[in-house]
Amino acid sequence: MAPPPLTLSIDLGARSYPIHIGAGLLGDGARLMAALPAGRLLVVSNTTVAPLYLPRLRASLAGRDVAECILPDGESWKTLATLERVYDRLAAARINRDGAVLALGGGVVGDLAGLAAATWQRGIACAQLPTTLLAQVDSSIGGKTAVNHPAGKNLIGAFHQPCVVLADLETLATLPDRELKAGLAEVIKCALVRDLRFLEWLEREIPRLLARDAATLAEAIHRACAIKAAIVTADERESGARALLNLGHTFAHAIEAAAGYGEWLHGEAVAIGLVLAAETSARLGWLGRPEVERVRSLLERAGLPVRAPRIGRERAYELMSLDKKVVGGRIRLVLLKSLGEAVVTGDYDAGALEAVLVAEVA
Amino acid sequence: MAPPPLTLSIDLGARSYPIHIGAGLLGDGARLMAALPAGRLLVVSNTTVAPLYLPRLRASLAGRDVAECILPDGESWKTLATLERVYDRLAAARINRDGAVLALGGGVVGDLAGLAAATWQRGIACAQLPTTLLAQVDSSIGGKTAVNHPAGKNLIGAFHQPCVVLADLETLATLPDRELKAGLAEVIKCALVRDLRFLEWLEREIPRLLARDAATLAEAIHRACAIKAAIVTADERESGARALLNLGHTFAHAIEAAAGYGEWLHGEAVAIGLVLAAETSARLGWLGRPEVERVRSLLERAGLPVRAPRIGRERAYELMSLDKKVVGGRIRLVLLKSLGEAVVTGDYDAGALEAVLVAEVA
Repeated sequence: MAPPPLTLSIDLGARSYPIHIGAGLLGDGARLMAALPAGRLLVVSNTTVAPLYLPRLRASLAGRDVAECILPDGESWKTLATLERVYDRLAAARINRDGAVLALGGGVVGDLAGLAAATWQRGIACAQLPTTLLAQVDSSIGGKTAVNHPAGKNLIGAFHQPCVVLADLETLATLPDRELKAGLAEVIKCALVRDLRFLEWLEREIPRLLARDAATLAEAIHRACAIKAAIVTADERESGARALLNLGHTFAHAIEAAAGYGEWLHGEAVAIGLVLAAETSARLGWLGRPEVERVRSLLERAGLPVRAPRIGRERAYELMSLDKKVVGGRIRLVLLKSLGEAVVTGDYDAGALEAVLVAEVA
Repeated sequence: MAPPPLTLSIDLGARSYPIHIGAGLLGDGARLMAALPAGRLLVVSNTTVAPLYLPRLRASLAGRDVAECILPDGESWKTLATLERVYDRLAAARINRDGAVLALGGGVVGDLAGLAAATWQRGIACAQLPTTLLAQVDSSIGGKTAVNHPAGKNLIGAFHQPCVVLADLETLATLPDRELKAGLAEVIKCALVRDLRFLEWLEREIPRLLARDAATLAEAIHRACAIKAAIVTADERESGARALLNLGHTFAHAIEAAAGYGEWLHGEAVAIGLVLAAETSARLGWLGRPEVERVRSLLERAGLPVRAPRIGRERAYELMSLDKKVVGGRIRLVLLKSLGEAVVTGDYDAGALEAVLVAEVA
């Protein structure tokens, strides 16, 4: 018998919504229906996830008018061209403002379906039904939606809060090991950003997480979601503290873009980005070597890559300078004052960044 | 010596902005610069408008880093494919979150550039510099942005308020007659929606407006903008009263989509839509024949079409049912309780709509 789901809430006035985390939620039709508007529905999923979980979701939506849009799987499909396919399905299914999009899948499906919902008829409801660890702890929460542009990751997008997030822990049973590990990178990131105790807990529990112990996974997801929920509630549109959640991401986006989308899993690039952020923080004198090694070691124990590909110093600067966090020509970085305490700053010694890029990516 | 510009304001908290209406505003660099963020700029315009007014705008932006994206002219280009061209320019020009898009042109440029700004890096600033009467009184104000989908007009879009609207009345000097008249359709619409006195004024002043008398045009623009500003301020995201501004538009969108985008000017289709809305209101017993004829006559005197193309009853229903105002399967219409008093309703005798479609478009 599964324990009852845990529920967190994102409090944003009229845009508030619940996050439910538990086993078997895709089969809980009543809970899902209660969060959806009355109109026609479009489920967006991919060729990997749909065969596994779409029948379960369809059963939960019995009696509703439900269309489907099944996309190819992978980050390389997170493009305007794929978004256009979703629009075509929305039109064919005659989805109006009282309809909704249901995003069943990982981060790519959630980001892309979320952007379709944000822009179809200037915004319709979107339910996020994340089926990967990364999507459950990170991308499904907070309303960031996007597709990639050849020039950079997530350059085209919108803020559009979902109407509900249902994280069904049972879907993690079919998640490939590589994707489970990629999700752990975002969990570790949350701990590094603002919770040293959680970091210590992760250092102890990593073996159980990799062994997919259900209760341990549930606790990790819940703690990571709680951190993200608190930060998003305080700063919906990333004018301040929310940028902390991008720890490691400016580096990660450059790595993903340089390698070509789909080469690295996002979480893998984030892992490398976390190491580079820790290294830069060490060059600034904020972290000691033992702390950098603690970050690296935890990521390695989680089965994640910690060495940057040699994309070249100039290419790294070029890609980082198109990142959304650039203001006034200066690359703003999220760095670590200490483990569990991230800061966003454009006011750092550029020589520290330069030294890290020369050492790690040149 | 031009009179000083008139200024209205849209009060939406953090998203408030001014609308300046006056002769020579494109040459007023100080006013424009004051409303723009500090980063790089991209001017979006088209092949008709750019040769006429881009040099003036460029001179006003002397000293700023300004890139250009010059699009083909016309509604048929208001597509995702053209939007992608704007994204490519934004990327090539390395426009970041502290940058801005400047939309120099008519409704197509404003809607498309506005959507690009709304979605580039999840939203950057957008200055609207409308150069057509229609854009000055309607599309540049209120933050509605969109491109068309083959299935319907403006189906893909976002709400994204501009940082400033500068309506330079001098640009109307080069506006083709057909476009001036199309703009008058939206002016007449504003009067029909909520200002009988303005309607009476228009009935008197139509000859002077068609003769482009500067003071009369300025007054018409100012009064229409004031109506639109008041309604948008009260209902930014069209949950209520803002839908009144769509008087005639459900019909108009069906006519435009059926004919193929570019066949009708938007304002021309709106003129026909206003007649159909008045006819439907008459069938419901809300307007008498003399009032319907008053609407038709004013539009005719403004040089606008008042006869619907025979797109067929079924095609009309099909296109109208994909309109954004459909809720619960029912086509909500904006109708006239009286001249100067529009209402939004889904609760009308469907036979009245049927009779009008049979008589006018079948």
